Parts: sequence; structure tokens; C-alpha cells
Amino acid sequence: MKHFLSVDDVDDPMMLVKEAINLKSHPLVYDDLGIRKVLGLIFLNPSLRTRMSTTRAAYNLGMNVMSLNMSNDSWTLETEDGVVMDGNSIEHVKDAAAVMGQYCEVIGIRSFPSLKDREDDYGEHLIKYFAQYSGVPVINLESSTVHPLQSLADLVTIEEMKKRAKPKVVMTWAPHVRALPQSVPNSFAEWMNRTDYEFVITHPEGMGLHPKFVGDATVTHDQEKALENADFVYVKNWSGFEHYGELKNDPSWMIDLNKLKNTNNAKLMHCLPVRRNVVIADDALDSDHSVILKQAGNRVCAAQAVLKSILM
Amino acid sequence: MKHFLSVDDVDDPMMLVKEAINLKSHPLVYDDLGIRKVLGLIFLNPSLRTRMSTTRAAYNLGMNVMSLNMSNDSWTLETEDGVVMDGNSIEHVKDAAAVMGQYCEVIGIRSFPSLKDREDDYGEHLIKYFAQYSGVPVINLESSTVHPLQSLADLVTIEEMKKRAKPKVVMTWAPHVRALPQSVPNSFAEWMNRTDYEFVITHPEGMGLHPKFVGDATVTHDQEKALENADFVYVKNWSGFEHYGELKNDPSWMIDLNKLKNTNNAKLMHCLPVRRNVVIADDALDSDHSVILKQAGNRVCAAQAVLKSILM
Amino acid sequence: MKHFLSVDDVDDPMMLVKEAINLKSHPLVYDDLGIRKVLGLIFLNPSLRTRMSTTRAAYNLGMNVMSLNMSNDSWTLETEDGVVMDGNSIEHVKDAAAVMGQYCEVIGIRSFPSLKDREDDYGEHLIKYFAQYSGVPVINLESSTVHPLQSLADLVTIEEMKKRAKPKVVMTWAPHVRALPQSVPNSFAEWMNRTDYEFVITHPEGMGLHPKFVGDATVTHDQEKALENADFVYVKNWSGFEHYGELKNDPSWMIDLNKLKNTNNAKLMHCLPVRRNVVIADDALDSDHSVILKQAGNRVCAAQAVLKSILM
Repeated sequence: MKHFLSVDDVDDPMMLVKEAINLKSHPLVYDDLGIRKVLGLIFLNPSLRTRMSTTRAAYNLGMNVMSLNMSNDSWTLETEDGVVMDGNSIEHVKDAAAVMGQYCEVIGIRSFPSLKDREDDYGEHLIKYFAQYSGVPVINLESSTVHPLQSLADLVTIEEMKKRAKPKVVMTWAPHVRALPQSVPNSFAEWMNRTDYEFVITHPEGMGLHPKFVGDATVTHDQEKALENADFVYVKNWSGFEHYGELKNDPSWMIDLNKLKNTNNAKLMHCLPVRRNVVIADDALDSDHSVILKQAGNRVCAAQAVLKSILM
Repeated sequence: MKHFLSVDDVDDPMMLVKEAINLKSHPLVYDDLGIRKVLGLIFLNPSLRTRMSTTRAAYNLGMNVMSLNMSNDSWTLETEDGVVMDGNSIEHVKDAAAVMGQYCEVIGIRSFPSLKDREDDYGEHLIKYFAQYSGVPVINLESSTVHPLQSLADLVTIEEMKKRAKPKVVMTWAPHVRALPQSVPNSFAEWMNRTDYEFVITHPEGMGLHPKFVGDATVTHDQEKALENADFVYVKNWSGFEHYGELKNDPSWMIDLNKLKNTNNAKLMHCLPVRRNVVIADDALDSDHSVILKQAGNRVCAAQAVLKSILM
Repeated sequence: MKHFLSVDDVDDPMMLVKEAINLKSHPLVYDDLGIRKVLGLIFLNPSLRTRMSTTRAAYNLGMNVMSLNMSNDSWTLETEDGVVMDGNSIEHVKDAAAVMGQYCEVIGIRSFPSLKDREDDYGEHLIKYFAQYSGVPVINLESSTVHPLQSLADLVTIEEMKKRAKPKVVMTWAPHVRALPQSVPNSFAEWMNRTDYEFVITHPEGMGLHPKFVGDATVTHDQEKALENADFVYVKNWSGFEHYGELKNDPSWMIDLNKLKNTNNAKLMHCLPVRRNVVIADDALDSDHSVILKQAGNRVCAAQAVLKSILM
């Protein structure tokens, strides 16, 4: 694997899932693959799970890790070409990327969308520049529009837990009190479209995702109907794509235990952090339906499979 | 040892002190005990000595370390059950703890008190949740009410320096310009009460500590009398427990060289950082009485003894 | 080498350059020299290249690294003796240095100048205190007045690229939109004065550097004349030394491709980050003249040569 920017960089997603499941059982089998190699993690936005799980994955492979926390305020990167940089930007991304690539064997980078300029966000300029100019493999630690390490961990979780070959997987929009990016649902949809599962997306009217991520998924505004006979219910809030970045908070879409009754004893998924009793009710989160902790734990083997593919 | 939240988790404090002293002489004897194991350090408040000494201790045992800096502002954890999380809290501590425990073999966590709500601070909810839900051993890097890694290092220092079997140890309140937590004096008292030393606490009226930490200590408001014949003088400011969080700044309680004259050539201790000529005068700090640097150095072997006990 | 505070700590700069070039070819030859040893990096100001390259250098030598980010706001160090510390400073630098030295085998420290109090900045109190009190070797990660790790990397770059034994090296002031320290040009001049190159400094009137750094360099206000037949053109903005900290932004001093025409096909150098089309024009930066990326890459072998000299 050259880069890991999205599922498009993965020849066979199911093979990568299998690799991750193997590494979960034997995390230290390749513990000298990364000896004396360095993973550089660059955070333009906060990170907890991604930071810790990716670091752990690198340690399991014997790598060294260096993390760099940068905020857009103190270290604004220029992404346009040819401009006179007399404003807030102190360095052009193509220079920064080319420099950092000389200090690491692999770079991971996180950068959230503005949620203000859709065209700019969906252009994914920053991570594309890093892939183009750093000279080393680049891993997406969540960019403006996708979060493939999360999706891979999600897929690992489904493969571990599924009780029939082609489970019904339902991704449902849920309410929230802040406008969140579309990266997790975009990415989950994109990966689901590379499986042979039955995949359904349900959300309120006006809250549809970018068509290129929705792909062949069945889309409905009827949450109740969508959940019928579901094997997996992936709950996630996102802000508007049409009305870009718009916050919607409709409490009737919150998932609780009652809503899971007509499912096929569905496993309940969420990428975390989850606001309890806003996105999902306690009675569902604390029930046997929930696999959210397993899902978070799978972030390690997912990142490790990606790193291993890059190093080998 | 399962957790290290306070002295209550230690069967035999003096055995742990001896272990620390051994490790100080031979820091690398167990340098493969922690190979491929990860210590996760989580800071909800700033840390210098604790961060560096605990990291060093982990390195001496061959562990990997990952540090996470979180401020209460950007990543507020919910500690109440059953609430609708539509406010500032973005994640429930029981979820966060259970996730982080999957990425590390051991977790250390630092979280200061509010100094506003005594009942809440003394409830120690955050660290208790981590111990309950993380699934891995938890080390207290200073919580709302105690700082046991500091106290263990203090005890190591006394054992190294004492000239009689049962030294007289005096902990004296000292002035300061900011309201500080009671964690260091609480913890020191609690550990002293597990020794057979003579232990005296002296402080101005109204500045008493919580009785459960004071225990069997002799308490007096007469600093001069307390210092008589002392072998060790532990100087520390704390804010009010009765008038919770209240700042008191009485310059007459500052320790200087003159005040040490009637001691038994006492060793002068402080946990650092120390404001010179406010808490302790230069003439005392720069005299042969001072063992503050040795004390700070002992933070490494103390943390290493705790980590070793947990790993073995 | 005891400390690496400036070129004055280096017996033979050219030998150190040769060592760095050797390490660049064989970065892992000494990969067990630093096993179980810890480099502590302390940042009172932001750092990207220095942080990453020095960390990488330490990893190449098998060292562990711990980084501490402190801002002057939250952790102000007192640098005066004998004062009553009842203000913003929470710890005296001599105490902090002596503590940290017990946790690491080597300390690196970065601290920018105020650009307000010239005498104070040029006194270099902070790093001198660290060298005096920490008890371990101290590496300058850029102080108020010099940046020797950068200069060493610059010298490595010149030695790698030079086409005649005594190249003409020209350092030219360039415009900027913010007042920047003089540390990079001071340091570059100081190192150039330890070589047998022809060394010319050019800058607008009133923008001269401290005479002790200028040394024997030829100084001219005629940029065009200075550039004639140059083999290397080092471009850098700095704020006023005479009118201390004063910002000057004269666009006519920007370097572009046209200005390089009368050079000896000069290599173009800059320490980065560079504001494109303010300091240097795109047409020069993106031409074959530019060696800025090689220069940034050489930060690793430069830091590694310094660390190796200290460890051996």
C-alpha cells in the first residue's frame, strides 16, 4: 500500500480486515518490522482514540512515534499556489510536507473540515498535498471528508460479530448539539459499498450525504422501517451536506433500547465519543446490544494492519 | 499491586520504599520487564516533575509511553450517571476509561480539584471511575485529594537521610500567593501515619486538613515549638479545608534559616515548584539543610517501584 | 563535547560537519549508543523542524525522548536571583534545571527572545542557567540569540554542495511581515567566521547585526553587488538589532530568480519556514537553485552528530 487516504487506496478491503483480525490475535508477531523506523503523527485538531490507537499499533510493530500538535491558529498552512504569503499562513503545505517526510518513514495527519466552504473541504487539499509532496506514505487520521481508520475498525467489528454471511447493516443519523463533520458516515458508507452486505442509510429529509459516498446504498427517511431486521445499527450524527455544515437536532431520532426491538437482536455501533441520552440512550448503550468498546478496541488492529501493509 | 490510587493500595509501604531504594541503585536491572508494554499518561492539568519522572521510570523498565494532554475546557468528561449530555461534556468518563484501557497496559491520570465543591473533590469520582472501568491498573499522578507518587518519593528521601530510627518529621504550612490543593499534605500525612516516625503537623488556626488524613499526627498551631528538635521539616502551602479553597498568605509562617536553628540540624523538604522567599527563604533553600533536589530526583525510583509492582 | 550552546562549544566545526556527513550516509551505525538514555526536550516556544529532526536523531542513536511543551504564560521561570517570587514566576530556573537534569542524560531547550529588552535577550540567562545547574549536557534548540543546530545543518549543506574549495557565501536580509529574532543570522555568521569561505553579509542600512557575530565578514548595503559570483545565497529576515526588535518590510530586498542571474549559479538557502513571495519568490524557490529541502533534511544528521559527540 502506498498511501492510506481512503478505501480507494485498498485493493481488497476484506483482505485487510482479515489481516487486522489476525494481528488482533497475535499483536506482537511483527514486532521488529518497524525497528528504527519512525511514524510522525501530525494533529491539526484534537485526537484521543486515533492518537492512542495508532501509536499503540506502531509500538506493536516496533516503530518509534513522534507526535506534533499544531492548531490552525498558531501554524496556519497555505494550501494555494502562487499567493503572496503576507497573511496568517506561515508556511506552504508543500514545503512543510516535504520537510516532514525527511524525518519519518510514515506520516499520519489529522485535519478537520471548516464546515463553512464545502468545495474547499471536499477538495481535501491538505492531505493530498501531503501525499504528493512528503515523499513518504501518508495515513489519513481523519480528514475533511473521510476517516478510513475508523471505517476499517468498524468493518473488523462487523466481521467478528456477524451471524450471517450477508448481514443487514443500517447507518442511522442521530441528533447532536454541535455541528459535526461528515467524515465518519461518508467513510463508513464508502467501505460498506465495497462489501456484499445489505447496507441501508436512514436520515431526516435534507440530511443526505454526498452521492459519491452513498453509492448503491438504500436510503430512507423512515428510521423505524430501516431498523427492521437489522443485524448492525451504526448510529452517528452529521451536519448538513446540502445546507453545508447546518446543525440539526431532532430528538425523535435518538436511538434507545425500544428502537432496537424490531431488529435482528442488532449490535449497536458508534465511533465515540458519544453524548449519552442525546445520540443514544443509556438503556441501549449499557445493554448487550452495544459493541462500542469492542469497536474502539479494534482501532489498534486496524491501524496496525495499515501500518504493516505500508512497511512490508 | 492492582491500582496505585493512594497508600491504601499498598500492603507494606516500607517494603515499597526499600524496593525504590534498590531500584535507585540499579535502575536498569528490570529493563525488559515492560518490553512492548505501554504506559498511557493522561493529563487533565499541567505536569512537569510527575510527567518526566514517571516517563523516565517507565523507560527504565523498557516500557513505551504515550502522553495525552487534555484540558477540562476542550475535553470535558461527564462523571454523573444518567444525565442528558447536551452541555459541555463530550464523553462520559466510563466510556473514555474503558476505551483507553484497551490501548495501554497501565494508565496514569492527573486531575486537580476545583477547590470550589469540597464534597465533589473529596469524592474523587474521576480517578475512581478510571480504576473501575478502564480494566487496567491505574496510577494516581495527583488527584483532587492525594499525590501518592510524591509521598512515596518523600518517604524514600527520609529513609535515605535519617540519622535515627524514629526521626521527628514536621510538616509545616507555609504562605503562598495562590490557592493550592491539599493533595500533597493530605498524602504526606497519610503515608507518615503508616510509619513509626514521630509526626507533627503545624499550621495556622483554621487551616487544618481533613481528619482522615491527619490521623494520629500531633497537631499544633505553634510553629516554633513544632520545629524543636525536628529531623525533617516538610514545608508546604495548602488552601483551606474548612473554608474550602480559601487562600491564606501569612508571611510569618515562611521558613528561613533562622527557624531551622532549634531543629536537630533538620533536613528541609518541599515537593517543588517552590516560590523562593515566599514559601521558603533563599538562605534556607541554598543551605545544607535542603534536600529538595534529592527529593525531586527520588520521584524516578518511586514511580519505578510502583510500575514494577504493577507489572510483576 | 560538554554543552552545545553555540559554536564556541565546538573545538573543530569542520570535523563536526564531517561527522554529520558520515552519519547521514550511515544513520544507524551507532544505534545502540543511546540505549536506555533519555533526551529531554523542553519547548518554551513552538517548534516543528527542530523538534522532529532532533527527536529523529535521538531515535537513530537508540535514545528515548521526552518532550515538554511549556509556554511562558503557564509556567514562567524566574531568572533573577534573590527576588521574592510573589508574581507570575512559579519556579526559579536554577531549581527547574537541577530537577530536570535528574530525569534525563541530555537536555535540549528552546526559548525565543522577547525582542523588547536587548540586554536581557543577549544575556541568554535561561540557557546559561540550564547549562550551569542541570548537571547534564545542554543542547541549544534555538535561544534568544543563536540557533547552532541550524547553522551546523547549513554548513553540512554547503560542504555537500560546494564546487570550489572556498565558496563565496552571501547572507542577505529579506523582507517579512513580522518581527523575527536574530538568532539564525547571528548563528550563521558566527559559524561562517569559523570557516575559510568568503563570507559576505548584505542588508539595508540600520539593519546590522551585533558586531560580535558579524566578526570578519564583509558587510554591504548593496545587495546586487553582494550577490555577484556568489556560490551560496542564504536568505533570511531579521528584526532590528540597533532599533531593537523593529520590523522592517522592504519588498525590494525579496530574492527572486532574476537576482540569482549574476551569481555563480548559486545554491539558494533558507532555514524555513519561508513565506513565499514575501521573503523569496516562487520562481526562485521552485528552481534548481533551491536547496532548502536538503538543508532541512540535514537537520537530522547535524543533531545526530551533536548528540553522538555528547554521548561518547
